[in-house]
Amino acid sequence: MTKRVGSQTLALDRQPSILEGASVAGTKEGQGPLGRSFDYVCQDAYFGESSWEKAESAMLRTCFDLACDKAKTAPSELDFILSGDLLNQCAGSAYALRGLTPPYLGLYGACSTMAESLLLASLLIDGGCGKRVAALTSSHFCSAERQFRFPLEYGSVRTPTSQWTVTGAGTLILGDEGPGPYITHVTPGRIVDAGITDANNMGAAMAPAACDTLRAHFADTGRTPAYYDAIITGDLGLLGRDIVRELLGMEGLDLGAAYTDCGVLIYDSAAQGTCSGGSGCGCSASVLAGHILRCLREGVWGRVLFAATGALMSPTTTLQGESIPGICHALAIEKERC
Amino acid sequence: MTKRVGSQTLALDRQPSILEGASVAGTKEGQGPLGRSFDYVCQDAYFGESSWEKAESAMLRTCFDLACDKAKTAPSELDFILSGDLLNQCAGSAYALRGLTPPYLGLYGACSTMAESLLLASLLIDGGCGKRVAALTSSHFCSAERQFRFPLEYGSVRTPTSQWTVTGAGTLILGDEGPGPYITHVTPGRIVDAGITDANNMGAAMAPAACDTLRAHFADTGRTPAYYDAIITGDLGLLGRDIVRELLGMEGLDLGAAYTDCGVLIYDSAAQGTCSGGSGCGCSASVLAGHILRCLREGVWGRVLFAATGALMSPTTTLQGESIPGICHALAIEKERC
Repeated sequence: MTKRVGSQTLALDRQPSILEGASVAGTKEGQGPLGRSFDYVCQDAYFGESSWEKAESAMLRTCFDLACDKAKTAPSELDFILSGDLLNQCAGSAYALRGLTPPYLGLYGACSTMAESLLLASLLIDGGCGKRVAALTSSHFCSAERQFRFPLEYGSVRTPTSQWTVTGAGTLILGDEGPGPYITHVTPGRIVDAGITDANNMGAAMAPAACDTLRAHFADTGRTPAYYDAIITGDLGLLGRDIVRELLGMEGLDLGAAYTDCGVLIYDSAAQGTCSGGSGCGCSASVLAGHILRCLREGVWGRVLFAATGALMSPTTTLQGESIPGICHALAIEKERC
Repeated sequence: MTKRVGSQTLALDRQPSILEGASVAGTKEGQGPLGRSFDYVCQDAYFGESSWEKAESAMLRTCFDLACDKAKTAPSELDFILSGDLLNQCAGSAYALRGLTPPYLGLYGACSTMAESLLLASLLIDGGCGKRVAALTSSHFCSAERQFRFPLEYGSVRTPTSQWTVTGAGTLILGDEGPGPYITHVTPGRIVDAGITDANNMGAAMAPAACDTLRAHFADTGRTPAYYDAIITGDLGLLGRDIVRELLGMEGLDLGAAYTDCGVLIYDSAAQGTCSGGSGCGCSASVLAGHILRCLREGVWGRVLFAATGALMSPTTTLQGESIPGICHALAIEKERC
């Protein structure tokens, strides 16, 4: 039985295993520092389709199929599929996954979706609701730009604080038994709004939520940052990462050298012109299913705290002058059950 | 421990209790056949706010606060809040619930969200992840019209198959103990796309998904429609309800007189000019938290199968000529634990 620890964390009983992961990325991501960690880098931003939205669905479906293949699991053997994305009405996921046999639970956690889907998948397995569950998500630079910002054809100028939406997808297949790594603890986050209104500074808007969840995780579990070999937030980018480090440091919580961010890792921002780094659901998803999973499997890391972050605004709320609420869900992923 | 029954259904072990429910509706819904079942009918479509989107958030927050009050539960006593809505990026829910203490899990199930949130809330409690969980959702006619169809000012003509988005919200507070009614079984749905492309005929688009989930529920549990005093789909409206009855009837599954639909119940469509009936997340949510809960408590019904339906398209996918995928999640809500 899952056990509550402290105010916000759940210690898992069965501690589900990550059976397999698959990651798909676009050309720019393939040229970045983690290029070799992706299972598939597509040279065609349209993924063979006729629109950016259809491209995103095709990419996510490719990623899902790859993960099932690698896990030697037919889609029909899954007990649940949990997915969501940034497109209006989460259409990227629904169109990618329609017609499949397993029950589908649609999620909206903005760029925190990989952590939210993984967290719920873990809890469903821990509660006996399933033996195999898929958690996945995606984002596409071109569909995100035209929906959240400007049509690509405008060639609009970017601010230094802005982030680059990752064209990428990640899928993890979780099982009740398996060789690990294991999900041992989850800390679901709450909505934190620090009053940031600059839609070109998502790192600053999401950092307070990341601080809130990390603080809760360490307080609830009694662990210190030193327990983890890597503490990795979702897509705060260079600026957001520095804000988290500074804010928690002021409270005496030093994240140390193990702390980094998927949005920092995925691009060489100075060389690739991605300003403050990567963002989007596909950022933390493709880095987790690729780089992080590989490091855990190869023994580079034994214990990772994965804390994906999301900004819950919409273009409409921004136009109406609203501030940007953030959220962050954290999962402890460990090589050994504890 | 939750137990899988058949291919798609879960039999709950603790069988969480609905502790309280609250429903909020707009003027038109207040004038309909269920007008007296809502806790609060607001005469101001703006709910005191300056935009339709802010109005929707204000309505949902009012509904959430009412439910907490009625359940004598401080928001901080909740272990999870599960919500979602139709607005782009589910902003209605995020802005309604920001700043609250409990962890938040955002969902996107379109108009099936009340069933999806309730289903996950039940499974979280059943798995020991929490003792009190809130499940809620909303829709607003004016925010939905301008996002999915046309600005209200156009006064656009409606087709006879079209449905009227309910201005309404519903919140249920679930607990691991309580006087009932209890959630005894859940049947999560899968994405079914029968190829319907008419965005003005949601009933037809969602009916195949409703058939799929109802068929699975009866096959998995071995129950017949006669087991239930009421079988109520989410928002298929007059046309969709007739399609479900006919399609399942052709397979020999006669839903009988107990079958109806929230979108049929909420308006007197002939008199109120709502064409094929009500729709929107708020339709099944406000009917469940109001009318259905009341009938269960007053002993009018002992066993209800609640099956909310959702259409997972977006305005963009419709413009791109895509068909409309549907989904339906079902829950057995019973006066006695079984």
